[in-house]
Amino acid sequence: MATEANSIPHPTLISVDPFVPAAKQKGIHNRWHPDIPPVATVKPGQTFKIECVDWTGAQIGNNDCSDDVKNIDLTKIHYLSGPIAVEGAEPGDCLVVDILDIKPFDKMPWGYTGIFELENGGGLFAKEFKSRAAKAIWDINGIYATSRHIPGVRFAGVTHPGLIGTAPSAELLATWNKREGELITACGESVPPVAFPPEPVNAYVGQDLPPEVMEKIAKEGARTVPGREHGGNCDIKNLSRGSRCYFPVFVEGANLSVGDLHFSQGDAGIITFSTSIIKGGVEKFALKQPIFVPSPIDPMYSQKIVFEGLSVDIHGDGKQYNMDATVAYKQAALNAIAYLMKIGYTREQAYLLLSAAPVESHVGAVVDSPNACVTLAIPTGIFEYDILPNPNGFQKRDLGQCAIRSDGVL
Amino acid sequence: MATEANSIPHPTLISVDPFVPAAKQKGIHNRWHPDIPPVATVKPGQTFKIECVDWTGAQIGNNDCSDDVKNIDLTKIHYLSGPIAVEGAEPGDCLVVDILDIKPFDKMPWGYTGIFELENGGGLFAKEFKSRAAKAIWDINGIYATSRHIPGVRFAGVTHPGLIGTAPSAELLATWNKREGELITACGESVPPVAFPPEPVNAYVGQDLPPEVMEKIAKEGARTVPGREHGGNCDIKNLSRGSRCYFPVFVEGANLSVGDLHFSQGDAGIITFSTSIIKGGVEKFALKQPIFVPSPIDPMYSQKIVFEGLSVDIHGDGKQYNMDATVAYKQAALNAIAYLMKIGYTREQAYLLLSAAPVESHVGAVVDSPNACVTLAIPTGIFEYDILPNPNGFQKRDLGQCAIRSDGVL
Amino acid sequence: MATEANSIPHPTLISVDPFVPAAKQKGIHNRWHPDIPPVATVKPGQTFKIECVDWTGAQIGNNDCSDDVKNIDLTKIHYLSGPIAVEGAEPGDCLVVDILDIKPFDKMPWGYTGIFELENGGGLFAKEFKSRAAKAIWDINGIYATSRHIPGVRFAGVTHPGLIGTAPSAELLATWNKREGELITACGESVPPVAFPPEPVNAYVGQDLPPEVMEKIAKEGARTVPGREHGGNCDIKNLSRGSRCYFPVFVEGANLSVGDLHFSQGDAGIITFSTSIIKGGVEKFALKQPIFVPSPIDPMYSQKIVFEGLSVDIHGDGKQYNMDATVAYKQAALNAIAYLMKIGYTREQAYLLLSAAPVESHVGAVVDSPNACVTLAIPTGIFEYDILPNPNGFQKRDLGQCAIRSDGVL
Amino acid sequence: MATEANSIPHPTLISVDPFVPAAKQKGIHNRWHPDIPPVATVKPGQTFKIECVDWTGAQIGNNDCSDDVKNIDLTKIHYLSGPIAVEGAEPGDCLVVDILDIKPFDKMPWGYTGIFELENGGGLFAKEFKSRAAKAIWDINGIYATSRHIPGVRFAGVTHPGLIGTAPSAELLATWNKREGELITACGESVPPVAFPPEPVNAYVGQDLPPEVMEKIAKEGARTVPGREHGGNCDIKNLSRGSRCYFPVFVEGANLSVGDLHFSQGDAGIITFSTSIIKGGVEKFALKQPIFVPSPIDPMYSQKIVFEGLSVDIHGDGKQYNMDATVAYKQAALNAIAYLMKIGYTREQAYLLLSAAPVESHVGAVVDSPNACVTLAIPTGIFEYDILPNPNGFQKRDLGQCAIRSDGVL
Repeated sequence: MATEANSIPHPTLISVDPFVPAAKQKGIHNRWHPDIPPVATVKPGQTFKIECVDWTGAQIGNNDCSDDVKNIDLTKIHYLSGPIAVEGAEPGDCLVVDILDIKPFDKMPWGYTGIFELENGGGLFAKEFKSRAAKAIWDINGIYATSRHIPGVRFAGVTHPGLIGTAPSAELLATWNKREGELITACGESVPPVAFPPEPVNAYVGQDLPPEVMEKIAKEGARTVPGREHGGNCDIKNLSRGSRCYFPVFVEGANLSVGDLHFSQGDAGIITFSTSIIKGGVEKFALKQPIFVPSPIDPMYSQKIVFEGLSVDIHGDGKQYNMDATVAYKQAALNAIAYLMKIGYTREQAYLLLSAAPVESHVGAVVDSPNACVTLAIPTGIFEYDILPNPNGFQKRDLGQCAIRSDGVL
Repeated sequence: MATEANSIPHPTLISVDPFVPAAKQKGIHNRWHPDIPPVATVKPGQTFKIECVDWTGAQIGNNDCSDDVKNIDLTKIHYLSGPIAVEGAEPGDCLVVDILDIKPFDKMPWGYTGIFELENGGGLFAKEFKSRAAKAIWDINGIYATSRHIPGVRFAGVTHPGLIGTAPSAELLATWNKREGELITACGESVPPVAFPPEPVNAYVGQDLPPEVMEKIAKEGARTVPGREHGGNCDIKNLSRGSRCYFPVFVEGANLSVGDLHFSQGDAGIITFSTSIIKGGVEKFALKQPIFVPSPIDPMYSQKIVFEGLSVDIHGDGKQYNMDATVAYKQAALNAIAYLMKIGYTREQAYLLLSAAPVESHVGAVVDSPNACVTLAIPTGIFEYDILPNPNGFQKRDLGQCAIRSDGVL
Repeated sequence: MATEANSIPHPTLISVDPFVPAAKQKGIHNRWHPDIPPVATVKPGQTFKIECVDWTGAQIGNNDCSDDVKNIDLTKIHYLSGPIAVEGAEPGDCLVVDILDIKPFDKMPWGYTGIFELENGGGLFAKEFKSRAAKAIWDINGIYATSRHIPGVRFAGVTHPGLIGTAPSAELLATWNKREGELITACGESVPPVAFPPEPVNAYVGQDLPPEVMEKIAKEGARTVPGREHGGNCDIKNLSRGSRCYFPVFVEGANLSVGDLHFSQGDAGIITFSTSIIKGGVEKFALKQPIFVPSPIDPMYSQKIVFEGLSVDIHGDGKQYNMDATVAYKQAALNAIAYLMKIGYTREQAYLLLSAAPVESHVGAVVDSPNACVTLAIPTGIFEYDILPNPNGFQKRDLGQCAIRSDGVL
Repeated sequence: MATEANSIPHPTLISVDPFVPAAKQKGIHNRWHPDIPPVATVKPGQTFKIECVDWTGAQIGNNDCSDDVKNIDLTKIHYLSGPIAVEGAEPGDCLVVDILDIKPFDKMPWGYTGIFELENGGGLFAKEFKSRAAKAIWDINGIYATSRHIPGVRFAGVTHPGLIGTAPSAELLATWNKREGELITACGESVPPVAFPPEPVNAYVGQDLPPEVMEKIAKEGARTVPGREHGGNCDIKNLSRGSRCYFPVFVEGANLSVGDLHFSQGDAGIITFSTSIIKGGVEKFALKQPIFVPSPIDPMYSQKIVFEGLSVDIHGDGKQYNMDATVAYKQAALNAIAYLMKIGYTREQAYLLLSAAPVESHVGAVVDSPNACVTLAIPTGIFEYDILPNPNGFQKRDLGQCAIRSDGVL
């Protein structure tokens, strides 16, 4: 007979409250540093759970106004749960991490996507759009997300951790700080900034540490904003629940941390892991960065509409760039946004939709000078109506607007 | 009863011989210009076939030496079959093109992938690798390609036209020439070149044209090397047989041209089309560039191994770039090449394999400063053996080498 | 800011304890009858959760012995949670049910697959195998199941409700009882039985009902064993989380009930729904039985090995049947079992594996007399080793045995 | 340089003319018998092509009248091209066959699907529908088929050989004749017949054979109508171009024959093969029947609408059957037909559509007595309009009718 005695739940190693500011909670940190001690240790093969706050540490609310996005405190972002040490992991090993599941908190079945102000958070089109704060709240209904701010859309989420990585060694950390510092020096003042140097203000480690250790971490710790050789904030949609990832190990125990869970974009939730170790895996697999095998349950929307972009700024001043895939990627996105606006979405809605939905952007070719070619594919099946081109064009719908600032500025 | 009388084959509107230099054949051209007249006119709804030489016009042979790649004449490349006019198409319309099928010539069941010399053709890693000519011949066996130069691999081709587009208007052509000229001016001499200005030498239009028209085309005609707003050489794998494409129309009749068919990479063959017109489609769909709906029969290899790349040159001097997706794309490819070399392929084999096989490169994120993140996914099912990481590492195989220069220089 | 106040969880309308016998719990029933009143009422559009015991009501334990399977009390099976009434649903309408999610209880991360005794529960091969009780326990690790009883396999579950349906009208119930009674009469005594007539013993409705109502239900209520026009126990793998189902409505409120959740096979858990109503849908869509649209996140294992079966009993006495797809299905399964035994699984392990893993059985053709052709496809990606045919045959592994009876009888 | 000399086409081993009656052509046969000698011999590893007439040997024409279907001569059907011997294949081996490609003749870009008369050819619903001859002509446009007889539909074909198999040994042939004879004896006269005994009339082998050999073949040879242990007429859609099949070998050389190519349903065309041999494969893989690995390029239409069927004749007299998957399959098809008729198709169009389009029928469960459950899934993406259920029901379209008899009888 089924009994409590013969049923052993998977343990939750870090528990958090998604409604409490991150910096008041244990087991959370927001800097990468080798001196942050593990908060728990697991054996290879063990299944365990980790709870995560959203990447802003509860700064964004489920409401219809984007003032919270506008006023976000960017020194308090990209919080991670961890580190978790894995018994036996040593520098040079490969840490195999199975992302077994990701789910939102039952008590918080929603997430959000935000457009940040040009001067506070910026983003891909911060300059082109002179961005003002906007957001969409996504209601999570099982595997689907819908938004009252972007009607007519329902998609199966590609739930993944935006931010996951092993701890850097002291040497690797020094490399990061040096090269990013050089970029900042080279670019001078920039809005939004080109990179974020170590920042003691609001550096946080949710453990009782000796003051000198905490001070060192605050002074040297790498910001958790970008992805780097250890993983980090890569925002790779296909690194989703069900995938198997291979991380290089830089410190004793590997010290895995995770956060910034994405159902849609910014979501708190619970992630289930198991791990194993491949000794000497860095050398065996030429592992300079993580590699991974995607999940068999990634959403399959076979029909897509695909937009192209080249390294010419045809949505701006028409300038020709030299094989620049970033420019091409942005042009593809701008072509997609222009198309979605023909259907009836505002520019802000379209931009938020592309940030949250299971779209795919492919690098088509970076070979035929001077034009790199990048494509962006939107699955047609996420819309309630047919969005394919048709001979009559679109009957333009009134689809409202996303959440904007209380002063109405766009 | 089935009879010849009740069976009407689809007509072939342009016939070519894949073994004859392109510049000796009718219905072929290698410049984009509005004054190139159509060689045939079709009605919307009609199914028709177009034969194409390979992009070099038969310069590359099925043999085991890359001297033909080394000595390629780059003024004679990217030949197109066409133009085909579509009745009723006018500037501002959208030309809907169904790519119904693509197949190799029965008499030429092979294609090739080449690495070009740093000084003659260059390529993605021309500088990093100081590239010397190399190639792989792919034998086409129905839907599969295999190569004696890259053993252990068999893949279903994503057969697509590398180069397809509508003719530019005079205004659009002038825009291209202006902006690309400015890039060339800005970059100065560069090896390989950053862009290719109009080049009268070996400009070719396989029609009897008045000399002054031909001269104008040779002098002003855009090179067929890069992709542009009309389509062109985009090398988009998913624009494969079975896809439906929507092109902006810039001239009366649309004047569609096609070439550079890819089973693996460089292949002659036969493409089947049908077309229709959406009046005013450019405005209806905000159509600054082609959009398309991929084919339902694109190869499905569900299991993949994915490599990440960031905008840091970790395979080179370690320099930090600012959100540069081209750098990130190259790093992902270099990570993949390093991995394939652990299995036993040479660097040249690995590079050629990535150019031909159904790999996918995704732009993961261009938001977390300073690191763009790009991934490259290789389907595991194209290998005869298991290429996933395993605890024992790889038993290194001797997999030979691809075709190289007769002087043995790599 | 994210707060408890702006976060509204989806309500759980029926709560159960998976470790308590079903017949001691509220909101559960095990007969279909129009007079069972709804235990809750929802509005169209509302998202809600229902908890379910496993189909045996906790009779099977997480251990290594199949005596609980051997001794199962079959009058106590196929328990359902419900009914749930939907406001406004009337006979002749179509009830649209979105299966938004299905997950196991955190406190019970396991399920099981059983082979039942020829004389107590039978099953597909009860007679051919003279089945003795056996079982496999599946550990549920996020989206994956593994079993200590069937080593070398890990699969992503196609989590679905084995049993879901609307309540029958009195007329429909009478039709069921009549036609099944006639079959029983026609077939006489049979082991296992051909069908199950109404059975007052252990008929259960977890509500306080007037005795005469309960008596009527017990006397007339249809067993929950088979599927019927209203849905019921169809065990359709693709009716998985993320699918949208269209049920005919036979009684006021529709009265939806659900149970027998399957991750692997027999699992307790929680299902999330939302519903809507299409008035007159039975007529609009010729809806004699449910139809559905499968989920975009069904596991995608592209490579499969496929076994054929014909309506000839080649694994038995060689008899030729006339277009009998049941015989063909069984032969395909027997071919698959024989193949899996070559790898090293026992017959019992192979049989249990086919019952739980995401295999697909297709009806190939029922047209070429006298042989129906049915195929059974096993995804190769669920095995830790390569199971494709290879020139050397299989190195036979010792893969142990599943859980069997304490007396060792097979 | 690419030259004819360095390009070796794959040889065509059997050439046919699709417009000439099969019984006037070489390399064709329509009986299975061990004494039919091979018409060609290949080495393992060689790629080769085989041309095939359609299964009726050109009896059906591309026109708008079904009289040719009505009057088909059923003694002249299921013609095969072959046999092809493979060097080194011996009884007990496994013949690995790669189906590398299948394409229609350029000169015959069409095929057909037919409903046969109750008294001449019958079919799945011959009795239920009292079938009268009807047909649909499919125009093959590259990878797509469309039909003027079934408007509003365009699908990518799952091109496959309906009929492919190795030659039986004398013992196996005797087994077939015995068991099928017993079925015929048991069932007595039946319309349509339950099976087809050897039939000397119109037995055909397109080779010059001694009269006594031909007589023996005509007298004993198994009809090519059904599938059997060697493969044969299995009509398995997924045995498509790109798949790899493993056949048991019963005679020296294996003697592979193929025919009844299907783009849509009945099509002449060209198939490309290569083969290899696994010695002793029958024992190694418990190979009582063919097994196969499907193609990576099978059409992927992710969105489907699925119909259920149970072993109750709810479309007929309501009778309850005992776990009969054939009844369930037919009910699922009848539910689908009823649905398609709501959209505007006639019953004949719907039936023909299900026979040709890439639908999938799954055996859901054959375990919950007394109802087997079978599903039938239709991809929504093959229709030009949305066929999903919607609140308003369908705006009924006038979609004409398929080709019917000249006397107008349905």
